[in-house]
Amino acid sequence: MTFESKIRPIQWVNGVSRMLDQTVIPYEYKYIDVTTGQQMFDAIKTMIVRGAPAIGIAGAHGVVLYAQELEKQNLPFEEFKKQLIEKADYMATSRPTAVNLMWACKQQRDIIEKSNSDIKTLIKELTKKAIEIELDDIERCKKIGDNGAEVVPKGATILTHCNAGALATGGYGTALGVVRSAYDKDNTVQVFADETRPRQQGARLTTFELAMDGIPVTLITDGMCSYFMSKGMIDMVCVGADRIAANGDTANKIGTYTVAISAKYHNIPFYIAAPLSTIDTNIKSGKEIPIEERSHEEVTHINGKIICSDKVKVINPGFDVTPNELIAGIITEVGILRAPYEESIKKAFETHQKLLLQ
Amino acid sequence: MTFESKIRPIQWVNGVSRMLDQTVIPYEYKYIDVTTGQQMFDAIKTMIVRGAPAIGIAGAHGVVLYAQELEKQNLPFEEFKKQLIEKADYMATSRPTAVNLMWACKQQRDIIEKSNSDIKTLIKELTKKAIEIELDDIERCKKIGDNGAEVVPKGATILTHCNAGALATGGYGTALGVVRSAYDKDNTVQVFADETRPRQQGARLTTFELAMDGIPVTLITDGMCSYFMSKGMIDMVCVGADRIAANGDTANKIGTYTVAISAKYHNIPFYIAAPLSTIDTNIKSGKEIPIEERSHEEVTHINGKIICSDKVKVINPGFDVTPNELIAGIITEVGILRAPYEESIKKAFETHQKLLLQ
Repeated sequence: MTFESKIRPIQWVNGVSRMLDQTVIPYEYKYIDVTTGQQMFDAIKTMIVRGAPAIGIAGAHGVVLYAQELEKQNLPFEEFKKQLIEKADYMATSRPTAVNLMWACKQQRDIIEKSNSDIKTLIKELTKKAIEIELDDIERCKKIGDNGAEVVPKGATILTHCNAGALATGGYGTALGVVRSAYDKDNTVQVFADETRPRQQGARLTTFELAMDGIPVTLITDGMCSYFMSKGMIDMVCVGADRIAANGDTANKIGTYTVAISAKYHNIPFYIAAPLSTIDTNIKSGKEIPIEERSHEEVTHINGKIICSDKVKVINPGFDVTPNELIAGIITEVGILRAPYEESIKKAFETHQKLLLQ
Repeated sequence: MTFESKIRPIQWVNGVSRMLDQTVIPYEYKYIDVTTGQQMFDAIKTMIVRGAPAIGIAGAHGVVLYAQELEKQNLPFEEFKKQLIEKADYMATSRPTAVNLMWACKQQRDIIEKSNSDIKTLIKELTKKAIEIELDDIERCKKIGDNGAEVVPKGATILTHCNAGALATGGYGTALGVVRSAYDKDNTVQVFADETRPRQQGARLTTFELAMDGIPVTLITDGMCSYFMSKGMIDMVCVGADRIAANGDTANKIGTYTVAISAKYHNIPFYIAAPLSTIDTNIKSGKEIPIEERSHEEVTHINGKIICSDKVKVINPGFDVTPNELIAGIITEVGILRAPYEESIKKAFETHQKLLLQ
């Protein structure tokens, strides 16, 4: 696998977290340096950085930023640890659905709790872990990509929803990692990208990053998927995940579930691509996954302009849950998990315990 | 049935066709007077007036406008008729999918062909027919509404797609006619409106006209329908139609088919509401319905601003076809047609021949 994406959305550079501002793509391509913990909390909340794996990395970076701030207060070590643990827990609440964020913050929390050295050493350890999570994510995504490429038919058109790409991860992508690895083997592969209202990550981010990497991409509106499926123009669906339950039920960007139902109706395989860290074995089924309710303006306004009557009511769930029965496979860094998912997920966790960052 | 909508989107007034400009709702609520045949052709094409029944009315008005123009040329009667027939045929081509447009232009064409009086008399006849089609549509929609209200459960939440409302018809609506009649009997009925990308008729028009008539409406994005269905928050789906084949397959705004599949998956009844004139018994199945391919900018731009990479490819079908197996019933002015549709449609046409405008 030699494909390299041009995109690196978040990177630890000289004591700050440098990130692409994803709220202004495709209009601007600008990096911003996040220098404080609160700035990172806000960057995650306002989706300057987004995508489950990427906000995991962001959370890990954020804890280091908090540590650097606290260091200036010359606190006793135990007090420093106590306050930093509170900050790590706070950072984990910046968004509720993606488990990677909680997972990454917990990685840092565990290091803080176990530390019995000194502030400088602890910060070094946290920084090392943050960079490790970042680089580790890219490697995992490449493995996900290579595993997924095995099930992409020759010359396939792959439909994706939202952005599970380089921009959503350390820099290769989960669902779009599968696309990159498949395209690397077969450059007749192409992508259909759902716009993904309300926030249009498919239009704004997926078309942008695929075009940047030279992979052919067709933009469609969310309602069109079934039309193209019925015309035989879609060969498989591949999307990312924000949280996967122990039974395989998968929370992902709102609209994913609709695509999955339509894929089932047309007998088109629907795949999830995600690292094992997205699987939350603590919850049994999708019913337990908390669904973030987001701002109503995301639905009623586009580019700052209202698109409807000002008297409408709005409900804006950020995610939906695709039940396991609609999922052909979960493409992970250790292979493709298949139904029954309770068993295959359990087995993957047992077998690859050492691969999970502890 | 006493419910009266405040909206009258197209009306013949003193020799001109007065219409609401639907491209500027909800930002402006302005009427424009269409005074020439070519203006009407363009108004239909650019969707200043839209909705299958409404563009039928518009087509009938348009032929009168052409007749008024030709009258000024002092042509011999037979030459007048010949040229006007060409204009009527041209008017019928302003949009390809909705059969009501062809139907209304053919009504006028038949009058022209059969006429053996004089230009002034013929224009009077055409004007009479245009107004008849307009008023007849409102009456038919009220009947559709009343028939549909019978199958709306008490306190129901009705999901609709696009705008099959007062704005799409003479002034009462087909799918929203069902809503109006149901709300008139039971004011706990409410509507969930799909945004309906790319042109957002659900957001721009449906929320606008329902709010104007005081009927509660919640705006959702197109991908969200399955989420709300899975939560038990949708009791039925009711949409309009642009053309219905002899077997019940129904062409409607792109995205309708996706909603229908999702409704089937959740065992929620999915209804079409349309006058008999929308049924094209000349075509056997949905496969034969021509699907309009619209401008790519509708997908790539919103309110004049690009929302994606400028390197994307686009396909923009304006409509999709929902197969009859997904349809619980076709609500018409003569009752609700049920599967098998070939039989129920045939029977409706035989029984109600006199109701069809000849």
